[in-house]
Formats: sequence, structure tokens, C-alpha cells
Amino acid sequence: ASSILKALAGVQKEIDAGKFPFREEYEDIHLNIEKRVIEKTGAVGGMMHTARSRNDQVVLDERLYVKSQISLIIEGITSLCDALVTIAEKHFGAVVPLYTHLQRAQPVLVSHHLLAYFEMLKRDRGRFEDCLKRTDANPLGACAGAGTSFPIDREMTARMLGFSSVTENSIDTVSDRDFLIEFVFCCAALMGHLGRLSEEIVLWSSREFDFIDLGDAFATGSSIMPQKRNPDIAELARAKGARVNGNLVSLLTLMKGLPLSYNRDMQEDKQPVFDTARTASFSLSVLAAMLAGCRLKTDKMKDALSGGFVTATDLADYLARQGVPFRSAHEISGKAVAYAERKGKDIAELTLSELRKFSPKIGKDVYEALSVDGSVRSRNSRGGTGHSQVKKMLRSARRQISKWG
Amino acid sequence: ASSILKALAGVQKEIDAGKFPFREEYEDIHLNIEKRVIEKTGAVGGMMHTARSRNDQVVLDERLYVKSQISLIIEGITSLCDALVTIAEKHFGAVVPLYTHLQRAQPVLVSHHLLAYFEMLKRDRGRFEDCLKRTDANPLGACAGAGTSFPIDREMTARMLGFSSVTENSIDTVSDRDFLIEFVFCCAALMGHLGRLSEEIVLWSSREFDFIDLGDAFATGSSIMPQKRNPDIAELARAKGARVNGNLVSLLTLMKGLPLSYNRDMQEDKQPVFDTARTASFSLSVLAAMLAGCRLKTDKMKDALSGGFVTATDLADYLARQGVPFRSAHEISGKAVAYAERKGKDIAELTLSELRKFSPKIGKDVYEALSVDGSVRSRNSRGGTGHSQVKKMLRSARRQISKWG
Amino acid sequence: ASSILKALAGVQKEIDAGKFPFREEYEDIHLNIEKRVIEKTGAVGGMMHTARSRNDQVVLDERLYVKSQISLIIEGITSLCDALVTIAEKHFGAVVPLYTHLQRAQPVLVSHHLLAYFEMLKRDRGRFEDCLKRTDANPLGACAGAGTSFPIDREMTARMLGFSSVTENSIDTVSDRDFLIEFVFCCAALMGHLGRLSEEIVLWSSREFDFIDLGDAFATGSSIMPQKRNPDIAELARAKGARVNGNLVSLLTLMKGLPLSYNRDMQEDKQPVFDTARTASFSLSVLAAMLAGCRLKTDKMKDALSGGFVTATDLADYLARQGVPFRSAHEISGKAVAYAERKGKDIAELTLSELRKFSPKIGKDVYEALSVDGSVRSRNSRGGTGHSQVKKMLRSARRQISKWG
Amino acid sequence: ASSILKALAGVQKEIDAGKFPFREEYEDIHLNIEKRVIEKTGAVGGMMHTARSRNDQVVLDERLYVKSQISLIIEGITSLCDALVTIAEKHFGAVVPLYTHLQRAQPVLVSHHLLAYFEMLKRDRGRFEDCLKRTDANPLGACAGAGTSFPIDREMTARMLGFSSVTENSIDTVSDRDFLIEFVFCCAALMGHLGRLSEEIVLWSSREFDFIDLGDAFATGSSIMPQKRNPDIAELARAKGARVNGNLVSLLTLMKGLPLSYNRDMQEDKQPVFDTARTASFSLSVLAAMLAGCRLKTDKMKDALSGGFVTATDLADYLARQGVPFRSAHEISGKAVAYAERKGKDIAELTLSELRKFSPKIGKDVYEALSVDGSVRSRNSRGGTGHSQVKKMLRSARRQISKWG
Repeated sequence: ASSILKALAGVQKEIDAGKFPFREEYEDIHLNIEKRVIEKTGAVGGMMHTARSRNDQVVLDERLYVKSQISLIIEGITSLCDALVTIAEKHFGAVVPLYTHLQRAQPVLVSHHLLAYFEMLKRDRGRFEDCLKRTDANPLGACAGAGTSFPIDREMTARMLGFSSVTENSIDTVSDRDFLIEFVFCCAALMGHLGRLSEEIVLWSSREFDFIDLGDAFATGSSIMPQKRNPDIAELARAKGARVNGNLVSLLTLMKGLPLSYNRDMQEDKQPVFDTARTASFSLSVLAAMLAGCRLKTDKMKDALSGGFVTATDLADYLARQGVPFRSAHEISGKAVAYAERKGKDIAELTLSELRKFSPKIGKDVYEALSVDGSVRSRNSRGGTGHSQVKKMLRSARRQISKWG
Repeated sequence: ASSILKALAGVQKEIDAGKFPFREEYEDIHLNIEKRVIEKTGAVGGMMHTARSRNDQVVLDERLYVKSQISLIIEGITSLCDALVTIAEKHFGAVVPLYTHLQRAQPVLVSHHLLAYFEMLKRDRGRFEDCLKRTDANPLGACAGAGTSFPIDREMTARMLGFSSVTENSIDTVSDRDFLIEFVFCCAALMGHLGRLSEEIVLWSSREFDFIDLGDAFATGSSIMPQKRNPDIAELARAKGARVNGNLVSLLTLMKGLPLSYNRDMQEDKQPVFDTARTASFSLSVLAAMLAGCRLKTDKMKDALSGGFVTATDLADYLARQGVPFRSAHEISGKAVAYAERKGKDIAELTLSELRKFSPKIGKDVYEALSVDGSVRSRNSRGGTGHSQVKKMLRSARRQISKWG
Repeated sequence: ASSILKALAGVQKEIDAGKFPFREEYEDIHLNIEKRVIEKTGAVGGMMHTARSRNDQVVLDERLYVKSQISLIIEGITSLCDALVTIAEKHFGAVVPLYTHLQRAQPVLVSHHLLAYFEMLKRDRGRFEDCLKRTDANPLGACAGAGTSFPIDREMTARMLGFSSVTENSIDTVSDRDFLIEFVFCCAALMGHLGRLSEEIVLWSSREFDFIDLGDAFATGSSIMPQKRNPDIAELARAKGARVNGNLVSLLTLMKGLPLSYNRDMQEDKQPVFDTARTASFSLSVLAAMLAGCRLKTDKMKDALSGGFVTATDLADYLARQGVPFRSAHEISGKAVAYAERKGKDIAELTLSELRKFSPKIGKDVYEALSVDGSVRSRNSRGGTGHSQVKKMLRSARRQISKWG
Repeated sequence: ASSILKALAGVQKEIDAGKFPFREEYEDIHLNIEKRVIEKTGAVGGMMHTARSRNDQVVLDERLYVKSQISLIIEGITSLCDALVTIAEKHFGAVVPLYTHLQRAQPVLVSHHLLAYFEMLKRDRGRFEDCLKRTDANPLGACAGAGTSFPIDREMTARMLGFSSVTENSIDTVSDRDFLIEFVFCCAALMGHLGRLSEEIVLWSSREFDFIDLGDAFATGSSIMPQKRNPDIAELARAKGARVNGNLVSLLTLMKGLPLSYNRDMQEDKQPVFDTARTASFSLSVLAAMLAGCRLKTDKMKDALSGGFVTATDLADYLARQGVPFRSAHEISGKAVAYAERKGKDIAELTLSELRKFSPKIGKDVYEALSVDGSVRSRNSRGGTGHSQVKKMLRSARRQISKWG
């Protein structure tokens, strides 16, 4: 054993130095290393493969790889969450329209909007942790699929390799690629969220929205059109999700209808997994860096809230609080808005007597409800956009991030 | 409130009796019900929609639906596990070739083979439970996306509706469809396993393998070709996975690049989810029923192990146990097999003196190693196919199933 | 034969009238009809199935279905093209920014922009025609897969059923589902285009762009927020593409790795095909209707071209026409724009002497090049946005549509 | 122009020799080359980019690439067809079971079976040709998307670059990736067929079927289990289809919902296209080589036809030819088979008097119908498995291949 270990250390040095004599006729990395060990140790090196098979070794490598990639991605998620929460903290109090159907609907705190992404990423993180549980099991000892007649101790190799458990059934162990598929799915779900964030950054970067300045490092300007700020990074992050979805389909299709146990088809599992891991890590880090350097144009966001009747539902809510059944309140509010529109005013610009024509229940305090600030503050239900709710969510997010860190 | 509740109970009766007066001009189920409540209660019914929006209501319904479907599927998984373990228990001791590349490789206990599917299903179950954690949160109160100004108690509605938590951010709550995508992914992973099992049943049903008799209820005979036993159920279960993969792609694509918060696109989330849930539940139950009625042809399985040198690796292992480095032992075994092949014999049929020509380390006890039974028994590493290992796995599986039940 | 035909006519009437006595024990539509024919004719009805099998009959039905759906979709494409070209004709001369990266880049005629969709749809149409060629072959007579011993005339049934050819190999005929997969792919490509158009309609409907008024019939207003014009139709058309992509994946996955010839898996081919055909036809017709009723806000489009240096490349082109190498011209233009930006002017607002500081080659005629109208007119290369080019393309599109009609 | 051309020739030499001084700060291949040309020619090199944009240049490169890849793949299809038809010719007359549901159904000529793949590949070829039509259009001159003010001649560059037409609309030209998506779809359809062929090779290579010997060059033996003939090539070809399906999903998802015109997302179109083209070409050539070296075990195929009542439908057909309605003939045949099964005989082994008990219409000539050879010969309908039909199909396939060659 000690001469094999010594030879292996030598092999590692040779590989690190780019001097390992790889030979194609030895077929793969496993045999190249074994042959080299035998060259160094003599016949005793041939003992290295005792109680092993490439079938369990390849799964071992893949499990170790996925474990390390999950760690990296979880770190990347934490960094991106930190970047998001930092901007959300910095711009606390700033308002922006909440869009539905890409139509301005109601005013919300921009911090509240950014925290929505924090929630998505928190779920993504949870999914990776769940995937890790299922990945973190030692496959070594399943050998070709039937186990081995050598008196091995699979718990010991588990401890040495840092696995928290061992796989339960040797046939399943060499046939199973669930941990890869689940990992790629977790990445697809994550990339879906990054894609939505990116879509918003692309929209916000447009001259039409003009809600964000990405900074020179992350927006490709054009030497000839200095006003252009191409949000290339966001476009690419949006695009990269397509790649991961494709990889997920590749893996699901690959495994479709394969009988047990090992089939050579499974060799094709690597490219989509490697590509996915790289894509996810890279997208996380580049978006985090971009967000760290961006500037929100909170004045433009506020402008987008004026003149669009975005507090129309607040009038309905106001009336409902006075005891008018919501459905009637809703209708009254609609009429008031239609009237205001005809007059070329916002509802908050109508006089009290104008407003009272629609309902005698309207009092002076209605103007507080109809203001953007009043509207935001009032929605103070748990998880809502009211200032104290959002402050609580910010604190909770910050605590969470520290705990992860 | 009490007159609204009374009216709602009436609505339920009308729907159950097929007598509810649905009207297309009311657009959707929400408004049809509200209008009907108002018809029954007068204007007070208009209060029903206070602090609510279709945006959070639809998510509520979807979360309740997915929760109930996960329960059903988890039950289905338990039943299928039970069916598998029952056959595995019944046929304990029977041997079958372990295939790699669809080539006979080594003898294993058929119970061991069946338990590989138990492991897959156990992981599937775990994934559904993890998905449930993320689904089991009350979205009510997010309203249109910004929360509400009414003093609602979201924890109370959570308790009343059986949710174990409430969602944290109102914008995320109405924008998020993760729980649907994750649910469909869990089904896709499950269906992938059912597809592999089905592929094996199709193979085993062929005249060439002839390892299983599906029974008349589950194999479609042909009135004209009585020897035909079309494994239609298995073929369909294999096919149904394709459907679920498609549904997963639909949902991932649907959500790609949608800005926050609610977009009408999301209305298209229902068909793939409903179709997936039905497909998964149905496939589980029909496979469980089919397995309950099938008969394994253990004699044919055993026949498939003769004459194929399936214990050739056992000779190598035997030599390695005598101290021959595994790589050399492997070569010796290869030579012995080639010799046996030339002689038209299996290795176990060679005489001791013939065998000893390849290595003097071979003794009389080699015949135990070269027998199918000896080969199986010897692979007694944890999770391996040795009888005592498999017995332990059977007991553990049975315990697990009782706990789930 | 004549009594069978008479009985079949009776069956058709029964089905049309909803009075056909379907019985589950007869398994499928084929046997239900045959049994009914036998009830009506006596034993002679049993001759109906001579030289036939459900294996070729089902392919026949599917081919006839796809042929008819392709016709419908091609009609739908023609109608949508007509709607697009009609708007393009109506707004000839109006300008809009060409966007790259969702950033305003150069002025183009809005007719030119709309005709881009005409080109996409023309390619889609071509793909459906190519798919039709491969679908339009008579499978009848392949029987169960080996052909038949009866002296049938497959060319005659082809003529009677309106097929332009017959399939060449009976085994392929019953095993092949290419025509379905290709049909669904053609729909996916089409839906991709409708999705891009829809995305633009959603953007254009936003308050930020404000380039289009969809009309009350096709934008869902909110009773309470009358300013909201939710572009639901466009959102749904965008979403429906996700469904078709999923169906394509279902079919590709379904057929993956199936050995010849018929396998029961193929029964699952119907749902995705039916769903796809309906989705494509419906999306085409609803978008065509919506476009017919919409109004382009050409004033807002024009406003979006002011102040954004959208003619900066025209300055570079102008210089290149004076002999300045393009790369240098590009740099000069960049400097001029930077200068104008500092001065708070557009480039066209700089004086001639200001401009000449950047290059002495600039003359008075530069202002023509720098105007939006001049910029558009000048790009008169084939397929470019110059007025005479676009007029030519409009005429050609109109001719094409008449020919299709 | 001549000094630019000279400089470009120099650049090409530098690139070929690996000596081109690539610099990352020049962003991409386009600018690296231009800068190098300017270094070589002085400022005049800056004229090279006149009337061009990276937006049309990248589409140009992609169209040229796809055109060349289609040629390669079409050649690969021809070679594989040649290999298939060569085996089909060589084994003319040999019989094999036609399988439905992986159950032996009827005897067919193995040449007929192989020609089914010829039909699939012929359709694939047609699809690539159709794709080529749509790819073969010159995009140059669309520039950034609006065309150009320089007096270019797009027909001339089309001729020089070997395009048969020019694209019609400059905005569409830079926004469109249809030709890539269609190309990848054509590859997916092709790979689906190669996957089915591979599945059959895997089955046929199993000890259970034992219909094919792949030869030592294409089956990976195991040094220790010489009887193993792992069909690795077929398994990998089957697996590679999964990769292409994934690439198709990537591209469809990538383009989903992108507004016009160019978006940076599109940069992600390359990897899936390059990977797909390589995969398709490689799979074709390796399967063609493998088939060229394989040996069909026609004796084993024939054995698989005995004792399985595979001519039961021939008895029904025989009776129908005597005027018995097919449905009754079918029932009679079923009874005869059941009787034969009870007696432990094949139907052809029943005596005439035994057979006549089921129908007096049975005569001595029935034995011809019940023989494997007679059954095959009789199915001589167009496209059927009768010898003269298959001979005709073989000749036609051979003619077709020569024409393609």
C-alpha cells in the first residue's frame, strides 16, 4: 500500500507538471494511472484495483465533483444575495411601480422588489442542499455492480473521502445518475431566476424605462453611440439559462428507458453536467459583480408612478375600510378614475367635493390613501410592501446571509 | 361573514349537483362564485373579496392542489415499493444475470436487482417531501402582489388551510411558480425510474429473455397469436415519462425571462401540472397492480447464467485473495477463460490440473468460487449481492415501508 | 362491399347524431365500428378488415389529420401575413427605432419592421409545405408491418384518399412517426415567431414604450384601473409556444430508442399533436384579429427617435462616403457625439463649424444625413429600410399573399 | 481594395501558422483581424468595414458553416445508406421476425427490415435539403439591421460566396436564427433514427437475441470475459441523440420571447450548433464503419421464427382468400393455434384433417401458407416483405444512392 501511495503521489506531480505520459491505447484515465503506478512499483501496483471497478470509480468522481460544485454555487448564491440586499438596504424608501402584465399596477418599495429575488435564491439554495443530501453517499465498493468478495469497509472509505453515508444497493449505485439530473435541475431553476432578474435589468436599462445605470464596466458602450448602454451581461445571463435547460433535457433523455445496470450511454453524462456547473457559477458571480457596481435611478422610478392612477385600488380599499362592500367600492373607484381621466387629472388631484360625488363615505383622510407614500405604507400586512414590513424582511435577509456566510 | 359562508355552502351544493349557473361573461371561476354569492346574500357578498386578489387566490389553489397530489403520489410510491419488496421477498435466493451493456456480466440475486428500484423510489419519495416543504406555505394575503392595507392575520389562514408556514414576500408570492416546476421535475425523475423498470419488463417479456409472465390481466394477448403477451402496460408507462419531460420543458420555457410580477403567461401553468400529476399517480398504481400479478420465471433466469463465463471475475478475485496482484489475476483469468472457450467448456468444468496450469495458486476450493451460488454468496460487502446482505436490505426496506404506511 | 359501405354510412349518421352505441369492451374506435357494421350487415361485415391492420389504419388517420391541420395553419399564416402587411401599408412612412439589445440604435420604417415578421412567417409556411410533402403518402396496405397477401392496389386507395404518393416500406410505415415530429417542430418554429411578435406587443403596450393601442376588444382593462391595457392575448400567445416546445420534447423523447416496428408507446403520440395543432391555429387567428384592430401610435414612435443620437452612424457613413476610412470615420463620429452630449444637444443641432472641427470633409449636406428622414431614405440597399426598398418589399409581400390566397 | 486583400491573405497565413497575434482587448475575431489589416496597410485598412456590421457578418459565417455541415452530413447519410443496403443485398433471402411490442409477430426478410432504415435516412436527407434552401441566402448587406447607404451589390457578394439567393429584409436578417434551429432539428430527427438502429444493434448483440456479430473492432471485449461483446458504439450513438435533443431545446429556449432585432443572447447560439454538427457527422460515420464490419447471424434469426406461431395470421389470410369473412377467419385461426398449443405443436405441424376440423375450406395448399418462406413470399403487396417487392426496393435504393453519390 505504501509503495502504491508513493507512486500515486508521483503521478499527481507528473500530471500537475504536465509531464504525465498519457497513452491513448490505455483507453482512459483510470488505466493510464494504474499502468503508470505499475511502472513505478512493479507488479505490486496491480493490487491497486482490488475491490474496485471503473463502474463505481466513475460514480465516485462524479459525486465528489457535484459535491464541490454545489459548495461553489451555494457560495455564489450567498454573494448574489448579499449584493441584492446591499442595494435594497441602500435604497430603502425609494418607490417603483409593481408591474403586472408589464403594466404599472401599484407602488412598492424597490427594496421589496429586490427582496423578491432574495426569496427565489433562498429556495434555490434549499434545493441545492437537498440535492447534496442525496449526492453525499459513498458509492465505492459497489464495484462492477454486484459488490465484492473482498472484506472492505465502506464506512471507512466514506469517512476518508468525506461522505456522510454509503449507498445502499450496489446495482442501483452503478446504474443511478439521479444526483446529476437533480443537480442540473437545481441549476435550471436557479438560472430561471437569474433570467428573470436579467430580463428586468435589460428592461430597466432601456431608454424607455431608464431605471438603472449599469456602470461602464458592465454595459458595453458603443464608441459611436455613447448613449447606448448595452446590457450584455444581463442578456448573456438570460441566455445561459437556455443552455442549462438543454442540458437537463439531454440528461433526462439520456437515461430514458435504459435497463439496469451500467450502459455505455452514461458516459455522455459528463459534458452537460460540467457545462451546467460552470454556467451557473459564472452567471452568479458576474451578476453579483454587476449589481455591486450599478446605480438605481430612483427619481426615474418615482416619475413612473405619477399620472398612472396607480393608487386607484387604494381608493377602493379606503371605501371598503369605511364599510362599503369591496365589490361596490371597486366600482365606485372605477367611476372616479374614469371621471379623473376625462378631467385630465390624477385621482389625488380631484377635490374632496368631486370625490364625494362618488361616495359620501369619502373624507379628507382619503388624500393620505391616494398618495404614493401613503399607499405603500398602508400595505403593511405580513410580507407586504409597507415600510416596517420591508425593514423586517431586510433584517431577516441580512441575518440569513450572515448565517450562511 | 356568516351569510357569505352560508351562501358559499349553497354554491358548493350547486356545483356538486351540476346545477351551478356558470356564465361565460363572468370570465372565471372566482367571479362566477362571487357573483352567485352576491345574488344569494345581496351587497354584503361583495365583502368576500376584501384583502384578496385573484393573483394570490390562484397560487393558493395551486399550492393546495400540489400538496394533495404529492400525498397521493407518495402513497403510490409506497404501494409500488411494497409490490417490489413483496416479489423480492418471495423470490429470495433466485439468481439472475446482472447486465452491463445488455450483456450478461455477473450473477446476482433477483431480490437484489428488484431492491435497486426500491432505492430509486426512496430517493423519489425524498424529493417529493423536499418539494412539499417549499410548497407548504400560505400565499394568501399577498393580494395583487403588494400586500394589503387590511389588518389580516396570515398565520391564522395558514392554520385554517393546513399550511405550516406563510410566504415571506408578497411580490415573490404572486410571481413564483417554483413549486410547480419542482413538482413536475420530481415526477419526471420518478417517471424516469418507472421507465427503466418498464424497459426491463418489456425485455423480460420478450421470447428471447422470457424472465417474466405478466398474467392475462396485464398483458394484451392477441386472439390470433396466443403466444403473444404484449406488455402494453409497461410500454405505456415507459412512454408516459416522455409526456412528463415535455411538461417540464413547457413550464421551464413558460417562465423563461418573465419580468416580475404576475404575467398572464402564467395561466398556462395548469395543463402541464394537472397532466403530470395524473400521469404519475396512474403510472404508479398500474405498475404496482401489474407487479402484484406477475410471475418471475426463475428457472429461465438461472438458465441464462450457464455457459457464459459469468464467474470469470470470481476466478480473478480468488487469485487476488491468494495474493496475486489483481491486474495479473485478471490476466490469468482471461487466459483460463479463453482456454475453456476453445475446449467448449465453462471454466467451472475445467479440471483442477487444467486450471493450475494458469496459476499454481489455484486450489480445490476454487470450484466454490466458480459456482453461481458461490459467486453470489461471496459478494457480501455492504450493499452487495451476498445472501446475508440482501436479506438485511430486504428487512430494512420492509421496515421503511411500514414506517411510511 | 356495397352493404358494408351502406352500413358505414349508417354508422356515420349514428356518430354524428351522438347515438352510436360505443362499448368499452370493444377496446377502440376501430373495433366498435367493425362490430357495428357486422351487426348491420351480418357476417359479411367481417370482410371489412381484409388486408388491413390497426397498425396502418392509425397511421392513415394521423396522416390525414396532419394534412388537414397543415392546410388550416397555412391559411392562418396567410391571414396573419395579410394583417401584418395591411398595417405596414397603412403606416408606410412612419418611423420607429430599430432596437439592438433593447437599446435604440437606428431609425427604420415601421413597415420595414413589420415586414420582418412577414419573412419569418413565409419561412414557416415553407416548412409546413415541406412537411406536407413527407406526410402526403398513403400508408394503407402496410398492414401489421409486413404487407399483405391480398392483391390490393395501394395507388388506388392513395388516389381515393387524396394522397399524392404511397409509402415505400411497410415496416417503416408502421414504425415511423417522423411526420408528426416534423409537424410539431414546424409549429414550434412558428410559435417562436409569434412569441417574439407578442413580446414586442407586450413591450409596445407598456406605458414606457406606448407604441400601440390594442383596442378594447383585445386588451383586458381593469374596471378599477382604466389606464391599464393588459395585453393578455399577446402574453398568452407568447406562453403557448412553451406548450408546443414541451410537446416537441415529448414526441422526441417518446420515440427515443424504440426498436422496430410498432410499440404501444406510440399511442402516446396523439395528445401532443392534437394539442399542438389546436394551439398553433388558435394563436394565429387570435393574433391576426388583434392586429386588425390595433392602432400604432406613430407619434410616440417618432418621439422615441429624438435626442438619442440615433443618426450617429449616419455621420460615420457620411464621412466614409467622403473617402475617410470607415474605422476613422467611426472614431470621428464618436467624438462629435461626445461633444454634442456635453453641450446637451443632438448632433444635428451642432453648427456646421462645430461639426467641421471634427473633420474638414463635413459639408452642409451633412444635415440631410443626420435627419431621421434622411437617415432612413439613405439606407436603400436591397432589403434595407430606405423608402423605395420598403415599398418594393410591400408590393412583393402583397403579391405573395394574393398568390397564397 | 488590393492592399486589404493582400493583408487578409497575410492574416490567413498567420492564423494557419498559429502565429497570429490575437489580443483580448480587441474583443473578438472581427476586430482582431481588422486591426491587424490596418497594421499591415495603414489607415486604408479601416475601409474594410465599410457597409458591414458584425451583426450581418456573424450570420454570414453561421450560414456558411451550416451549409458546409449539411453537405458533410448528407455525405454521411449516403455512406450509411450504402452500408445498410450493402448488408441488405448480401443477406437477401434471410428471414427474421418482425417484432411488435418486442414480441415476435411475423416473418420478414431481413433486407426488408434494413431497408426501413434506408427510408428513414432518405427522409432525413430530404429535410436537410429543405433546410439548405432556407439557409442558402446571403445576409451580407443587412449591416447592423437597417441596411446601408453605400451602393453595394448584394447579388454580387451572393455569387462570390456561393449563395443562391439574398435575404429579403435586413431586420429579419440580423434577428433570425431559424436556419440554426431547423438544422439542429434535422439532426435531432436523424439522431432519433440512428438511436433506434442502435437500440436494435444493442438488442441483437445480446446473448438473448444473438442476431449480430459486431466484429472485434467495434465491440469492446473484456479481457476477462471474452464472451462479452459490449456494443459500445451503438450505445454511444443512442446516447448522442440525447445531446442533440438538449441542443434543440437550448436554441428554442434561447430565442423564446426575444424582441427584434439583435440581442446579445444570440451569441449563445454557437455551442449547441457546433456540438450538434460534430455529433451528427461523427455518429453517421462510426455507424457506417461498424455496419460494414458486422456479420448477421441469419441462422439464429431463422431459429427465432420456429415454434412461435408466427404464421398464425397467414392461416387467417388463407381462409379469407377462400371467402371466409376476415373476422371469422381470424377467430378460426385463433382456435387452431390454441389447439396446436395444447398439442405442443406448431400449426404447420397439424395434420390436414386436424386443420379441417376448424374449417372445411382448408386444403392441402395451406401448408405453403403456413411455412415461413411461403408466408414471406405471399406478402407481395407494394412495399411488403415478399421477395420480388424487396428486390425492387433494393434496386431502387441502390439507384438512389448512386444518384446521390
